[in-house]
Amino acid sequence: MKIICEQSKLMSGINIVLKAVPSKTTMEILDCIKIKVQGGTISLIGNDMALGIETVVEGEIVDEGTIVVNAKTFSDIIRNLPDEEIVLDADNLKLIIRCEKIIFDIPIRNASDYPELPTIDRKKSAVMSQLTLKNMIRQTVFSISADNEAMKIMTGELLEIKGKKLRLVALDGHRISLRNVELTEEFGDVKVIVPGKTLNELVKILSGELEDKVTIFFSENHVMFEIKDTVVISRLIEGEYYLVDRMLSGDYETKIKINKKRMSECIERASLLIKDNDKKPLIFNYTEDMVDVKIRTQVGYYEDKIDIEKEGNDILIAFSPKFLLDALKVIDDEEIEIYMMNVKSPCIIKDNNETYMYLILPVNFNMD
Amino acid sequence: MKIICEQSKLMSGINIVLKAVPSKTTMEILDCIKIKVQGGTISLIGNDMALGIETVVEGEIVDEGTIVVNAKTFSDIIRNLPDEEIVLDADNLKLIIRCEKIIFDIPIRNASDYPELPTIDRKKSAVMSQLTLKNMIRQTVFSISADNEAMKIMTGELLEIKGKKLRLVALDGHRISLRNVELTEEFGDVKVIVPGKTLNELVKILSGELEDKVTIFFSENHVMFEIKDTVVISRLIEGEYYLVDRMLSGDYETKIKINKKRMSECIERASLLIKDNDKKPLIFNYTEDMVDVKIRTQVGYYEDKIDIEKEGNDILIAFSPKFLLDALKVIDDEEIEIYMMNVKSPCIIKDNNETYMYLILPVNFNMD
Repeated sequence: MKIICEQSKLMSGINIVLKAVPSKTTMEILDCIKIKVQGGTISLIGNDMALGIETVVEGEIVDEGTIVVNAKTFSDIIRNLPDEEIVLDADNLKLIIRCEKIIFDIPIRNASDYPELPTIDRKKSAVMSQLTLKNMIRQTVFSISADNEAMKIMTGELLEIKGKKLRLVALDGHRISLRNVELTEEFGDVKVIVPGKTLNELVKILSGELEDKVTIFFSENHVMFEIKDTVVISRLIEGEYYLVDRMLSGDYETKIKINKKRMSECIERASLLIKDNDKKPLIFNYTEDMVDVKIRTQVGYYEDKIDIEKEGNDILIAFSPKFLLDALKVIDDEEIEIYMMNVKSPCIIKDNNETYMYLILPVNFNMD
Repeated sequence: MKIICEQSKLMSGINIVLKAVPSKTTMEILDCIKIKVQGGTISLIGNDMALGIETVVEGEIVDEGTIVVNAKTFSDIIRNLPDEEIVLDADNLKLIIRCEKIIFDIPIRNASDYPELPTIDRKKSAVMSQLTLKNMIRQTVFSISADNEAMKIMTGELLEIKGKKLRLVALDGHRISLRNVELTEEFGDVKVIVPGKTLNELVKILSGELEDKVTIFFSENHVMFEIKDTVVISRLIEGEYYLVDRMLSGDYETKIKINKKRMSECIERASLLIKDNDKKPLIFNYTEDMVDVKIRTQVGYYEDKIDIEKEGNDILIAFSPKFLLDALKVIDDEEIEIYMMNVKSPCIIKDNNETYMYLILPVNFNMD
């Protein structure tokens, strides 16, 4: 294998596939990047067995061939070379990297030991804006459950397409985050559970441009995101997702309108009094045109008052500050509306069109 | 005690004294900041017993008094308040912090438990530019020895004034870093060893302005730096400093001139092949108008060539990449001159006026 690439283009490709290289693994070969030069194309591949990424890099091909090199060593070296032409030249034992007067050589691994990416059927697909998908993931993925072996489904997000409607749902037993969007055309019905890890890496690859498109292909056990010269292939999580619609019913006894920035800052200050694993509740006393916010922990006492507009009953209710803050951070509206039923029922933060819905369970509290 | 301060001014003061609050300590009271309102002045004090900082904060005094509060809690709260007027109001049990509609209260500690800062005799002193001192420390302090119980002297820097000449020296057994500067007037002779920790914190407080002055007061066991409204008081390290002049003699067999940026980048790339505690040498082959740089480690092989100007003998010599890089990073010259005697003797990087001198011991190597 021998190719010539510009440093910046090679580095962009490496940065993309590195997202599928596991930071810790017992399978040493997964620490590697595969460089596949075949059929006139230079591809880089990263694969952690659950998530695989392949990207095409522009360059001149002198000899085709496939090699596997340590991802950290290779990426460190390329990152630190000048932005000039780089020659990658491999024999059976090593990869020689040349740039100007600089020469590196590093050992290569047996390419046949590297696991192949699964082949995905391209029959069923949907197309959407990269920016839209990026935002929807970012605005929900924080509420998946981290590493929950007992409840594997909670470690992923529901991606559901019905007619022109796409929705993403993440939940962890204490809260539900949901985003809806209207697609430009119909793509048939789809209901899959995508691993959180895949979505977290995908967010970093998706562009921030509304015009850039991503095509999603759905197969029995996998989902593939095609983004320009890159494909991201992920296993799906098996199982039936929770029926969230019945949890997000429209009934309420209290509806309040509040400035989002003011509320976020208030909760952030309250969080200062919470140490590590302290589960102290933040108590909200919603009365006529004001909410009185209080917390007492072993660190100290805090209170603040915020103007609100209220419809319905007064309510005294408590929440975990973190869960409220997580939701407020990903809402772009300046004013938000919060719907509450009673002290034991979840609150729902949503807009009129229900493009977003954040459900959060209250916590018990004692008034002292 | 009751005072009213602007948030930004209070926070600036807190940020300064926090540098003397130990991150870990067995004496719980040292986790605190002392707020001393006395004689019409509001002072904040931090003290880790070796290093103490006191700074004056502008504000309105309603009632004088002295309290001690947990540094982390207090600074976290003030940092997160709006930039408005803050009222600090203490009784015997707690400090109440008010800002707009926000109220915090946190417990206070017994002020008499907090150790007093030592009183420093103001007889012997020197005045210099804050920028000059800041640069000189930054350009030497990296080569002190970290936490060396056996060689306590190496954990500090020599600060020596002789007539108008000030010099700072740091060494760790493998290298010596030295900076000289001419002061604007004579301040008498001084020779003290200042702890590295003090210098590292001082660098963060000194301004980057040439016109701003710092006054240094020297007493038997302490040194005090007076910077506008702030004093930094530090214990000195006892003992006789090493006689470095004889180690920095002017003899050499080879003198080379090289581009600093080119050499730094070359050494940084070589460092990519060095894992954790690997002590692999970087081999320099200085010939007529070129230096050939090579390293082989378990990660791979690297070579590069850099143009040089040479006087004297060819030389093949090896160094630890880190020690060379540390020195190159703090030299501002575009072209540097390196003086070498033989393969066993240290190299010295210095300018013509000896405003800086960096001595680095070579390491053994095998050619393969």
